[in-house]
Amino acid sequence: MTQVFNFSAGPAMMPKAVLEQAQAELLNWQEQQTSVMEVSHRGKLFIELITQADKDFRELYNIPENYKILFLQGGARGQFAAIPMNLIGEKGKALYLTSGHWSATAAKEARLFCEIDEINILEQSDTLKVANLDFSNVAEQYDYVHYCPNETISGVEIFDVPNVGNSVLVADMSSNILSREIDISKFGIIYAGAQKNLGPAGITIVIVREDLIGKARKSTPSIWNYEVQAKSDSMINTPPTFAWYLCSLVFKHLLKEGGVKAVEQRNQAKAKLLYDYLDQSEFYRNTVAIENRSLMNITFTTGNDELNAKFVKDATANGLQALKGHKVLGGMRASIYNAMPIEGVQALIAFMQKFAEENK
Amino acid sequence: MTQVFNFSAGPAMMPKAVLEQAQAELLNWQEQQTSVMEVSHRGKLFIELITQADKDFRELYNIPENYKILFLQGGARGQFAAIPMNLIGEKGKALYLTSGHWSATAAKEARLFCEIDEINILEQSDTLKVANLDFSNVAEQYDYVHYCPNETISGVEIFDVPNVGNSVLVADMSSNILSREIDISKFGIIYAGAQKNLGPAGITIVIVREDLIGKARKSTPSIWNYEVQAKSDSMINTPPTFAWYLCSLVFKHLLKEGGVKAVEQRNQAKAKLLYDYLDQSEFYRNTVAIENRSLMNITFTTGNDELNAKFVKDATANGLQALKGHKVLGGMRASIYNAMPIEGVQALIAFMQKFAEENK
Repeated sequence: MTQVFNFSAGPAMMPKAVLEQAQAELLNWQEQQTSVMEVSHRGKLFIELITQADKDFRELYNIPENYKILFLQGGARGQFAAIPMNLIGEKGKALYLTSGHWSATAAKEARLFCEIDEINILEQSDTLKVANLDFSNVAEQYDYVHYCPNETISGVEIFDVPNVGNSVLVADMSSNILSREIDISKFGIIYAGAQKNLGPAGITIVIVREDLIGKARKSTPSIWNYEVQAKSDSMINTPPTFAWYLCSLVFKHLLKEGGVKAVEQRNQAKAKLLYDYLDQSEFYRNTVAIENRSLMNITFTTGNDELNAKFVKDATANGLQALKGHKVLGGMRASIYNAMPIEGVQALIAFMQKFAEENK
Repeated sequence: MTQVFNFSAGPAMMPKAVLEQAQAELLNWQEQQTSVMEVSHRGKLFIELITQADKDFRELYNIPENYKILFLQGGARGQFAAIPMNLIGEKGKALYLTSGHWSATAAKEARLFCEIDEINILEQSDTLKVANLDFSNVAEQYDYVHYCPNETISGVEIFDVPNVGNSVLVADMSSNILSREIDISKFGIIYAGAQKNLGPAGITIVIVREDLIGKARKSTPSIWNYEVQAKSDSMINTPPTFAWYLCSLVFKHLLKEGGVKAVEQRNQAKAKLLYDYLDQSEFYRNTVAIENRSLMNITFTTGNDELNAKFVKDATANGLQALKGHKVLGGMRASIYNAMPIEGVQALIAFMQKFAEENK
């Protein structure tokens, strides 16, 4: 049996050790002879689980005490709506920095709920590049400034944190949360859908500075009202318990594997391997500026649509799954989130070499 | 090892056969050598899964062709907000029939988004009873009429469908969906959180008549906009894929077990056994009127708080889990959803007899 590596952009690979544990105890969690899916979220054992998950996630990501961690439903796109409702109250204005599909989609959704301004921060010449990140002169007229530090479709990552002066910085980290160390204190809110680095699809983590809680407009659905959810430990309604449980296992797994510092080193090594190969190749190319190359989503193309299609087909046949690029961009995309081992990247490069030889 | 029966009100028991299948294929779904959690929701195999799930659910519940089935996030409480946004547009008024905690909570949330009137339909004398269900003289002045046909906390179920004339009837069936045959065509919208009869917590099913789609107010979050979600097959964002997969297995399981007609017969038999025992007992009592006794949640008390606490503790020690009543009501509650086998009810009655003997 060929070993399979799954490069899906999300829902994405999960750590094998986590899935194996979930499998082993799926019908008998904590010796209860029931599944973790079947127990009350208000029961003693589940409360212990979420208390430990909060503790582990804080330790892992170095989250200061003046931030609450909420585990919500609705995905990042739910938060696209929830953020203006929670931060602007009845009337206000936000600034959206757009650098690709997801930041633009967040801005579009926000317009349903408040007035916004948009600044396109992506420079498109030979390469995709985000140059200027200083918004200190304009930011303070806004209730918050939103950006997306990793655009999964193009593979553009913003490593420096935008300077927004004393305004509130909000980041959609769905695709790069826990991938490298960051200074949480620079952010007002960090949010992320789980299905790339945290767990399965269906749970959304919101890290919110406490002073930003309590400003929601009246017409905020209670499941997204940060004050309501902070007061009820994210249990104003039945939470997605199984997804929460899986996140808790991922946190434990990452702590055991050396924490985010070690994760970052592995991610750097994996990405370097693939970008170095791309840079010396005359057959494939990546068009992102070196300083904005994503550690998580690496896009490349042969420059020929037919050849790209053949690449994806042959790769799949060789156990390298889900390498097709997003339809708006075409080409290929290798999503190498935390759970992708370096062996997956090595296998991909070996295949790329062989494919280039045979098709040049 | 004692056999365990889990009477949790939700998240509740799931069919063992479903959990066993999920366990067996957790790391290798459809021979892909990946988990169903790890694959793209837009991939061929997952699209086949949801297409079959739609077909199976329609067949199972006899859903007419002019209804769409949406699989959303946010629980029933999310829909408490989404329903006024979708049905009332910018301005309008709804009628909420309240019969207990959940219908009242739905009304409270709706007030954040629209004007409503409330009618308490629960009569409280010696027994809890819902008598009058004819609202045909007032209903048509409202954009919709909302009710909850099964109140889990008190164990009050409304078997007849309210007469709302030509108005739109909306039902929160979180705790009794798929438990008995119903005439879907009498409803505008039926919605349900999954965690009682459909699957795990974290997915919400909305069955909506097509002519009600397309009326949402501008400020409706796109993940809850029925038009947006109907057009994108409930995939405007990454759906909770694993929860959807489990629902699909539950549908297949129920079809194999004889469909909803057979489910209903089993549920009637289970409930009759327990109510018959309660009615002849001088030690326990249930205070719901016979015509409103829930098939899903059966409440009872010894009339003595200390004795109730002892009952719950001893029952747990005997493998009969989660029998404690909701904190607002006290006493005991046996939730016997579709997945509870009759053996669970028999074991409960045997324990109740023994406990009564020893403590009378």
